[in-house]
Amino acid sequence: MVFVLKQGAPEDKIAAFVKKIEAAGCSTFLSTGTEHTVVCLIGHTAKIDVDFFVQTNDIVEYGRRITEPYKAVNRMVHPDDTHVRAGDVIVGEGYFQVIAGPCAVESEEQIIGVAQSIKESGVSMLRGGAFKPRTSPYAFQGLQEEGLGFLLAAGRAAGLPVVTEVMNQTQLPLFEDVDVIQIGARNMQNFDLLREVGRCRKPVVLKRGFSSTIEEFLMSAEYIVSEGNPNVILCERGIRTFETMTRNTLDLSAVPLLKQKSHLPVIVDPSHAAGLRSLVPALSKAAVAVGADGLMIETHNDPQSALSDGAQALDLDQLRSLCADLLRRAVFEGKKCNFRS
Amino acid sequence: MVFVLKQGAPEDKIAAFVKKIEAAGCSTFLSTGTEHTVVCLIGHTAKIDVDFFVQTNDIVEYGRRITEPYKAVNRMVHPDDTHVRAGDVIVGEGYFQVIAGPCAVESEEQIIGVAQSIKESGVSMLRGGAFKPRTSPYAFQGLQEEGLGFLLAAGRAAGLPVVTEVMNQTQLPLFEDVDVIQIGARNMQNFDLLREVGRCRKPVVLKRGFSSTIEEFLMSAEYIVSEGNPNVILCERGIRTFETMTRNTLDLSAVPLLKQKSHLPVIVDPSHAAGLRSLVPALSKAAVAVGADGLMIETHNDPQSALSDGAQALDLDQLRSLCADLLRRAVFEGKKCNFRS
Amino acid sequence: MVFVLKQGAPEDKIAAFVKKIEAAGCSTFLSTGTEHTVVCLIGHTAKIDVDFFVQTNDIVEYGRRITEPYKAVNRMVHPDDTHVRAGDVIVGEGYFQVIAGPCAVESEEQIIGVAQSIKESGVSMLRGGAFKPRTSPYAFQGLQEEGLGFLLAAGRAAGLPVVTEVMNQTQLPLFEDVDVIQIGARNMQNFDLLREVGRCRKPVVLKRGFSSTIEEFLMSAEYIVSEGNPNVILCERGIRTFETMTRNTLDLSAVPLLKQKSHLPVIVDPSHAAGLRSLVPALSKAAVAVGADGLMIETHNDPQSALSDGAQALDLDQLRSLCADLLRRAVFEGKKCNFRS
Amino acid sequence: MVFVLKQGAPEDKIAAFVKKIEAAGCSTFLSTGTEHTVVCLIGHTAKIDVDFFVQTNDIVEYGRRITEPYKAVNRMVHPDDTHVRAGDVIVGEGYFQVIAGPCAVESEEQIIGVAQSIKESGVSMLRGGAFKPRTSPYAFQGLQEEGLGFLLAAGRAAGLPVVTEVMNQTQLPLFEDVDVIQIGARNMQNFDLLREVGRCRKPVVLKRGFSSTIEEFLMSAEYIVSEGNPNVILCERGIRTFETMTRNTLDLSAVPLLKQKSHLPVIVDPSHAAGLRSLVPALSKAAVAVGADGLMIETHNDPQSALSDGAQALDLDQLRSLCADLLRRAVFEGKKCNFRS
Repeated sequence: MVFVLKQGAPEDKIAAFVKKIEAAGCSTFLSTGTEHTVVCLIGHTAKIDVDFFVQTNDIVEYGRRITEPYKAVNRMVHPDDTHVRAGDVIVGEGYFQVIAGPCAVESEEQIIGVAQSIKESGVSMLRGGAFKPRTSPYAFQGLQEEGLGFLLAAGRAAGLPVVTEVMNQTQLPLFEDVDVIQIGARNMQNFDLLREVGRCRKPVVLKRGFSSTIEEFLMSAEYIVSEGNPNVILCERGIRTFETMTRNTLDLSAVPLLKQKSHLPVIVDPSHAAGLRSLVPALSKAAVAVGADGLMIETHNDPQSALSDGAQALDLDQLRSLCADLLRRAVFEGKKCNFRS
Repeated sequence: MVFVLKQGAPEDKIAAFVKKIEAAGCSTFLSTGTEHTVVCLIGHTAKIDVDFFVQTNDIVEYGRRITEPYKAVNRMVHPDDTHVRAGDVIVGEGYFQVIAGPCAVESEEQIIGVAQSIKESGVSMLRGGAFKPRTSPYAFQGLQEEGLGFLLAAGRAAGLPVVTEVMNQTQLPLFEDVDVIQIGARNMQNFDLLREVGRCRKPVVLKRGFSSTIEEFLMSAEYIVSEGNPNVILCERGIRTFETMTRNTLDLSAVPLLKQKSHLPVIVDPSHAAGLRSLVPALSKAAVAVGADGLMIETHNDPQSALSDGAQALDLDQLRSLCADLLRRAVFEGKKCNFRS
Repeated sequence: MVFVLKQGAPEDKIAAFVKKIEAAGCSTFLSTGTEHTVVCLIGHTAKIDVDFFVQTNDIVEYGRRITEPYKAVNRMVHPDDTHVRAGDVIVGEGYFQVIAGPCAVESEEQIIGVAQSIKESGVSMLRGGAFKPRTSPYAFQGLQEEGLGFLLAAGRAAGLPVVTEVMNQTQLPLFEDVDVIQIGARNMQNFDLLREVGRCRKPVVLKRGFSSTIEEFLMSAEYIVSEGNPNVILCERGIRTFETMTRNTLDLSAVPLLKQKSHLPVIVDPSHAAGLRSLVPALSKAAVAVGADGLMIETHNDPQSALSDGAQALDLDQLRSLCADLLRRAVFEGKKCNFRS
Repeated sequence: MVFVLKQGAPEDKIAAFVKKIEAAGCSTFLSTGTEHTVVCLIGHTAKIDVDFFVQTNDIVEYGRRITEPYKAVNRMVHPDDTHVRAGDVIVGEGYFQVIAGPCAVESEEQIIGVAQSIKESGVSMLRGGAFKPRTSPYAFQGLQEEGLGFLLAAGRAAGLPVVTEVMNQTQLPLFEDVDVIQIGARNMQNFDLLREVGRCRKPVVLKRGFSSTIEEFLMSAEYIVSEGNPNVILCERGIRTFETMTRNTLDLSAVPLLKQKSHLPVIVDPSHAAGLRSLVPALSKAAVAVGADGLMIETHNDPQSALSDGAQALDLDQLRSLCADLLRRAVFEGKKCNFRS
């Protein structure tokens, strides 16, 4: 159940209203949008008489029962799209953004070169892994803290906000200067991590677990938002199916579905989904057309000698020409973009 | 292994060449393209010395071993795209086509009205089910032969070629006036049916089984083509996954993959994949962008009272506005189309 | 909705009762068990007043609404287990049966030898493929009619009923002397074939489609039984999942689930599920313990040189020792069996 | 690559041997079994000449290349089964153990009562969740530290070692008195947690991720063992498939496969797999027959009012009669067990 408050409702009246609801046996949390504040009720809401609360509290515009298990991320709570701001880059709100960079930061020189090049291609955020979740304990695990430093330096030099993956909540203090925290597919249901990330206000890219349903995906976003961090970008990156020609199966129907159910921005990672460089351009184009707010594309200065996931990375020239095409397409869709042509 | 013959190779020399190969212990079949004839070898090809056969037969342009199990549908055999012609409608060769119509033909009046309307929206082929494969023996099974008659009449009246599903090979004589035979997802590995359909030369829409790999899909096409019918249109229509919000998961990566591996045209059915009307427009747009040669969209004059699959059908107005949008998109992609704006 | 009739209800009264129901707008079919006849109603049953029909028709013991889409195979219609008789072999009713034989009949000598050997091991039915559904049109397709003749001869010589797969309904006349018709996984939703097989009274082994739900599986059995053939044996043979070490994933939970939902006997095919010989013994033992009524085990005189599926076939000695173990286990479970120790 | 050392190889010679290998450019770790020490080589092993190292080092019994990515958990490294000891309970080595208890500890009284009852039924370890990973942030998250205290008290009172789930590595200090640490399915690829757990020597129950392949499962065990903790019990608990009647699909073929590939003990959790109480007995029996070393069965004093997962929990009487049956079955399989009849 939610109560949408009138614009400009004064804080003391909100506090008093919340108190009344909690006295009735529910817990609450506030979702503060650009125009309205929404009070979400959690718990035994069956006993609450919606109409009574609306009529007897003049700061309430309307109340509504929500049957879905996700509340704060539910579009019914917040009918307009939300957007997430990272530095001067806006994800959502009619913008189309390309995030690019290598799977793993491999050296300072490498990441600085990549950042410079992709910036010129029109990319608006730099991604790169410092801490890498790898299936094998014997595989390259990333340059760790040193890699994080290289990445931040590269982003600063190129003037690009950086996105990088956190592997557990004890690492969060290291991420203070990171612009956007990525939560990887394998951590989508690491609930303690979600909660911690929800307690900071940093933008988060939350990747869909490769065998998570849309509803579970939204529930994981709910963990973050209900802790007070509304800056969540959902990222579809493929699900595990029986098909073996691709690494995963990109589920593009997730994009319009997520947008129907939720107000959060949605981006697409075609690289991890396909696992094959040759499919990335076609899937990127499809992602623009299906309504995504952006793309995250794996890009490497020298894919042949990449320390991880080289088979799916574009090289810098391939990215440049893809970006130019994506720009045309974003314009065709009526999107704004930070791309330079 | 294949031998691509020089343009204009005379028939008697081809026959002599085939004889030699068969004498060497392989069976063969011919794939006749617009420019080249290709001789495909099946069986114990290990013993064949490719270079020797090329050097000693002047009608041979080049020979090549093919490791994939599909030969005739393999792009290596036929590097250019092929196209399929149904009446005056071309699928492939740079055209983008929309096929539309109801899941089931319900009455003569209904299908004639639908055909007229979709024709005006720019649709180039009429689909409709006369024989319906239904999970339940108690569900509506289609109007059968009578429905087929209505469908053909409606197509003729509107000047649209018709596509309709065959359920088993004993029905084929009834399909003489049908323009395009559809083989449904559940029959994708009904090998006897594939073979029979391969023995006629009618265009075929072959739908991907909902749990078939891309390779199995191509092998089923191979059944048809290797029997002598090159007129196969592949149709991606969603695969079965763990996700429950949609009926199936549309696998759009299949489109570029199929086009890399094979020379056959590929269309997309977003309606059966999603099972939800509200996702059809977004998925249709994505299909155009990902490189499909067309779409098959379920459309009904009155979806609320449809006898089957109403939840996924567009109404005639929704189709009209979607078609107008798809036309713009096809033009943007540099495709030709039969649409009228 | 079903009406269970009193024991010994006279035929004319049954006919009159059926007429009344049909006058009320429903269609019906009769399911005749060993003790009771059950009248199943299909169609607009909402209008039928169950109590009224029970009170006003003295041949009716009780009536009940059935919410599941499967009626005739529903355990609510027939609370006791049913069994299927093939020659003198009973599947169900407390018996545990092993069906064995090669994937494909390869020669008369081969199949006669296999039949003799497995008979001595305690196997009670001979399986062997004459018509083989193969993913590739270039793979061995079985010896066809000749193979069927060899199989029947081998079964007769060894005194074993034979099970073999039909690929389409036009082949049914060839199956007149076959004891049990197998419908393969790929044909589980070949509804026209199901209907035809339902019109004969021969026992049927219906294999679960490799991506069919339990409910779809029961609906396919319903197609057969509702046409008048109650002799259906359900066969779990693995489902398609993301796991790649095995060919399919054997779903043993399907066995108790099918037995809860339906009264039909259930057997298990561990060979096709695993695709690996080394897993067959463990999975066979598990199938006995989980409550299956029998097993279908691929067995070959010389698996190394089998023309199809050799990797999953046991050799004759492996089958002998497995059968001896399975006999002990069937006895432990309190099952009767035709095995000789 | 591994080198299996001769029994009784002296420590200084082992150290010298390891030094030589590392000088050749590989890193190593030791796996110390009851009879042999094994030196596993990680890294660029291509340059290592196995024969040369065997011939020139007299403490080496034999050397072998291992192509699988898992080394320390590979059966080739350790051909005999290993076992894990928790208190006086042995998992593996011919024992069959039942672990039981509620999904969540709900009160001190509850867990003490459950522990007492299941002990009398023959259960050898107590499980219960104190920290619960829940899809929804609004669902009951467990009694946390207080629940852990109740669980430990209940185990001590009943004389049963306790198993409970850790959700992240910062909780490990709280688990000092816990006998067996459980890593849940959602954390199977939480690599930092695996590494931390590998640094203590406590027994670990590692649950298979619900969409993890067998190889990924073994790689996660490798993370723990390669850090020095050999006490890993693998637990199959169902995988995510398209089937909707059960919560997950129990993959019993994983048990013999894991035992072929690895030397670690394997147990089965039928409760989470099925999600339905009525399937637990049949699946438990199948698990015994398929070769599992034990079962983990969800059991609650009052399943109807359980705070989580009530639908899949047995009540105490159901567990008692199931345990009695499982004891008979374990004896039939030639297993030792701690059960009292």
